[in-house]
Formats: sequence, structure tokens, C-alpha cells
Amino acid sequence: MKRERVVIIGSGPAGMAAALYTGRAQLNPVVIVGNQLGGQAAITHAIDNYPGFPGGIGGPELIEQMKLHAEEFGARFEWDMVESVDFTKGSPFLVKTYQQEYLADAVIVTIGADPRKLGIPGEIEGIGKGVSYCGTCDGFFFRGKDIVVFGGGDSAIEEAIFLTRFATHVTIIHRRDSLRAGVQLQKRAFENPKISFIWDTVAEEVLKDDSGAVNGVRLKNLKTEEITTKPTEGVFIFVGHVPNSPVFGKQIALNDEGYIITDERFRTSVEGVFAAGEIQDQIWRQVATSVGQGTGAAMSAIHWLDEHAETLQQLDAELAPTAEVVAGD
Amino acid sequence: MKRERVVIIGSGPAGMAAALYTGRAQLNPVVIVGNQLGGQAAITHAIDNYPGFPGGIGGPELIEQMKLHAEEFGARFEWDMVESVDFTKGSPFLVKTYQQEYLADAVIVTIGADPRKLGIPGEIEGIGKGVSYCGTCDGFFFRGKDIVVFGGGDSAIEEAIFLTRFATHVTIIHRRDSLRAGVQLQKRAFENPKISFIWDTVAEEVLKDDSGAVNGVRLKNLKTEEITTKPTEGVFIFVGHVPNSPVFGKQIALNDEGYIITDERFRTSVEGVFAAGEIQDQIWRQVATSVGQGTGAAMSAIHWLDEHAETLQQLDAELAPTAEVVAGD
Repeated sequence: MKRERVVIIGSGPAGMAAALYTGRAQLNPVVIVGNQLGGQAAITHAIDNYPGFPGGIGGPELIEQMKLHAEEFGARFEWDMVESVDFTKGSPFLVKTYQQEYLADAVIVTIGADPRKLGIPGEIEGIGKGVSYCGTCDGFFFRGKDIVVFGGGDSAIEEAIFLTRFATHVTIIHRRDSLRAGVQLQKRAFENPKISFIWDTVAEEVLKDDSGAVNGVRLKNLKTEEITTKPTEGVFIFVGHVPNSPVFGKQIALNDEGYIITDERFRTSVEGVFAAGEIQDQIWRQVATSVGQGTGAAMSAIHWLDEHAETLQQLDAELAPTAEVVAGD
Repeated sequence: MKRERVVIIGSGPAGMAAALYTGRAQLNPVVIVGNQLGGQAAITHAIDNYPGFPGGIGGPELIEQMKLHAEEFGARFEWDMVESVDFTKGSPFLVKTYQQEYLADAVIVTIGADPRKLGIPGEIEGIGKGVSYCGTCDGFFFRGKDIVVFGGGDSAIEEAIFLTRFATHVTIIHRRDSLRAGVQLQKRAFENPKISFIWDTVAEEVLKDDSGAVNGVRLKNLKTEEITTKPTEGVFIFVGHVPNSPVFGKQIALNDEGYIITDERFRTSVEGVFAAGEIQDQIWRQVATSVGQGTGAAMSAIHWLDEHAETLQQLDAELAPTAEVVAGD
């Protein structure tokens, strides 16, 4: 069992910012990396909307810079996954990973959410080569191109309308014969001359050319079972996100969709546990916003640790015989 | 009169992020720079807590990178100041600067707030050389040093406690004989062995050595009128902030302290006017958080412009004979 001031669960932009800030506050944070250092940002080929990097920067490069930056201030990265937590008894919290057990005064959860996949051949291989799950992030790369959008909810239609700023034409492909999106949004989409629809249809495969670049989708009409091929350079998939919250069970308040509920200071329902980034953000989902949230969550955690310094110091004394104390001050 | 999709008032980190995001959305934003390109960030010698820059980066360099980045996507920077606005008639909004008049579909206000100064000799010259207005930002630079803190409110005492992570000793100097800060905070400060107090005392001057580095403060006891000199390497001043909102008069809802009131999507009381950064943030005040907020405000503005595209296009047609239309789409 390792005793820690702060354990950060997740290593995407929110976790990196939290590691930097708690590191600079001399808290010597541990970051549990998860299955992908850097999260979604690390599998993004080019990030050209994180302010301060003209010309853009590769996702893995940006993550490496953020990691080096946090390490300069004492953050430690552990290539490990959280198996379970015990938040039921309050601080200090037990965080059990595959390789270790941590007893942490404060926990910052930045474990993220993943875009839901269609689950068809060619989809994963096409990411960064024509397949995208974020219009705000990637729309700019599709100027003057014909693209398709999968989905029929509010965000799919909003993103489709947004994408008409760039694309010459946007075809919305939906498995049903009507949209779930709100009436006003539907009206705007139907009236937009750059948007057309293919109904009752699902994707069977994302197609690519010899270079690996996406050049079409194979479609299946669910009513007629007809198979067709639609040439396209861009495949935008907006069929929801899946928050990575199951590891917390019922120990922390989640909303109906499984996202951690936080207040304006990134506090969760458990005092001493904070959350930032896409695990608690259904609106923005940008590197820049996750960095801002991770900064805020870290500042709240630091503030909370300062408030409870006396109690926590007593605990250190009591726990000293059984737990190795790793502390910044 | 120039017709614009988006005018951004202010060029600090929030404004830079908003310029980048609205630029990438093809909105060709205009940024009214204000009296200092980059705002407070630009007068910060070293910024080592904006994630992604190991080793830190100079404030002016970071601002230049952000500006270049936004310009890549069509943002235009105008070295100009806002003289008045007319938000009373709704969108499009009149923004009058010293050199120009803009008619903007949407406005993003990132005009900032400035830390209140003591107004004593040596203070301004000492910024970056020992004088600081932000413990979270600069505490790390004062490891192992003796520092003084001016102020007696909640944030002064919180910052003083935070600074004990770094400093060998923190002396709180207050003009009265008791603190305004809350009782719990006072208790923590009084019990902290690294904190001591000098009461009924104000600063007369910040002193420096031959290299320009701060090496002391000249103090005056308000009861005895005794003048003393206290050697110190760090002078932290926490006597409040002044939001730059007077230019908006009563045209936008402000809180009691003059900050613009925004909702969780950075919308102000005026539909089509958004705000981000320190003009609406009394909690975080970091480059990273302002960048996140600017990103959010821009995304909200883009969303709002999409929603109102039809009305705004009609307006373009009506206004065309009298106003030069500068638009991204």
C-alpha cells in the first residue's frame, strides 16, 4: 500500500493539467495512465486547435510535451489501470490498480469518455484518414469535400450543420426514417441546401484507397436490404459517447448517461474526489477545455487539501506504521 | 462601418482561444487588442503552468504563438481600444473603437480584470522580479525564500497558506488589526507555524537591489507612524481585482463587484454576446482556464450564429447597401 497526497486517474489533457498543477503545488502526484497515455488526444493525428501551437502539433507529440512538463514538477506516471476504488469511507481513498494499491488523500478523476463506434470494418483504421468523431475538431480539414454524417440526434444534426461551413455537401445517413433531433434543428437541416439525407440505412464498411485514405462507405438499406457504395472523403460519426465510469460502480454520483456529476468547482458527490475532462463534460470535449477543467479540478483539490491539512497530518502519523508515506510536504 | 460576424474584445489567452476557434469556424473574427496585446499574460516574465511547454515559456512568446496560431485561421488583430458599445438593440451589435465602427453579429468579451495595485513606488517595476499578484502562478518560484503578503481578505489568507508550501516563512502585512477573512481561514493561518503577522501597517515602497531584484519593503505603522524596512525576496499583493467592465455601462448584467455574469455556456445577459476569461471569472484566473473558457465562449457563439443564420442572412441583404460585409461564409 502506497500513501499518496493525490492520485490522478487518467492521462488525457485534463489529467496532464491536473498533474502539472498538483505537481507545482509540491504534491508529488501519481498519474494512473490507463490503457492509452494521453487518451483520445494521443490517437489524434493532428491537433491544430490547442492555442499556442501555430501549424498544429501531432497528438502524441502534444501529449509527450504535457507529460514532460508535469514530470518537471514531480508528477509520476504509472503504466497501470485502475481495477477498483473504495470511496465509501471518505478520505483517504483506496485506489487499487493491477499492480499496486494506493491510499490517497485526494483523487482527481480524468478517465474520459470514448466516442461510440459503429463497429464496422475500416472504421478504426480510418481514424485520422477520413473518419472523425468531432466536427469542431476536424471540420476544417474537410474544406471543399463531400462528406457523410452518421447519426440522427441533436448533436449529429448540429455537427452536420456546422460542417456545411467547410464541406461542399453533407449527406446525413440515418438508420431510421426520421430524426431524434429537436424540431428547430431538423428544420434548419432540411432547409440547408448543402445537406441531404439517406434514410433507413446503415454503414456496412468504411472503404479506403491504396494509400489508406477513406474514399467511400458501403451502405445497406434496412428496408430493401439493397447494398450500395457511396463515394466520400469524410465519414463523421455522431452516435454518442460512452463515459468510462463503470469502474466507480455506485460510489460516486453519475447522471443518467453515466457521466460524473460535478459542480462549478469540479467537486464530485464524494468530498475529496474531483473530476475533470470528458468524464464530466458532455458539452465541449476539446483539448483546450479539458486542460482548463483539469487545472480547475487540481486547484480545487489543492484548496481542499489545505483546508484538511490538520486532519490529514494526524492520519499520516496513525498510518505511518503500515503505509509508506509519499508526500510533497 | 464594418460589418463582421464576430468581434472579440480583448487579446489575452481567452481572446486568443476565441479567435482561434471562431477562425477555424470560418468566421474571420476581428480581435480588438486593447492597451496590451495578450493582457496580463504578456507582462508575465515566465509562464510555466500552461500545459505543453516544458521548461516554461515567456509570456510575450506564448502570446505571440497564440496570435500566429489564430491568424493562421483568419483572425485579424486590430491595435485599437473599444470606446463604447451599443448592445441595447440586440444583434447586430455596434462596437465603436477609437479608429473604427463595427457592426457585429456576435461579440465575445474577453477584456479581463487587473489585480488591484498598492500604488507605491517600486511596485510596477518589481513585477516578475519579486512582486506578484498570483500565488498559484508564482509560488513555485519562491521555494526556500522569505516572503511577505499584503491583504487580509479570504483570498489573501488562502494564498498565504498556499505559499507556505514553498516559502520558508510568510509574513502577512495588514493595514488593520484584524482580518476580513473567514474564521476558519484565520484559524488555519494563526496556527500555521510558517505564518506571522504585522498589523496596522502599510507598504510605502518596494525596495530593490542593483540588479532590479526585490530585496525588501519599506513599511509604515499607521498607529505609531514608525517607518521600518523589512528584507524580503517576494512581495505578494492580494488586495482584489478590478474588472474592465465600465466600458459596457449598464448594457450587460454585472455582479456586485463589476464582473460580467455568464452561464455555464459563457452566455451573458445579452443574447449574442458571450464572455470568457477574467472579466467573468473570479475563481481560477489562469492562462489554462482562460483558454478553456475562450474556447467554450467561441463554441457557444458559433452555435448561436448557426441557430440564427437565416435572420442574419436577411440582415446582410438589408444592410448591404450601407455596410461593407466581411464574412467568412
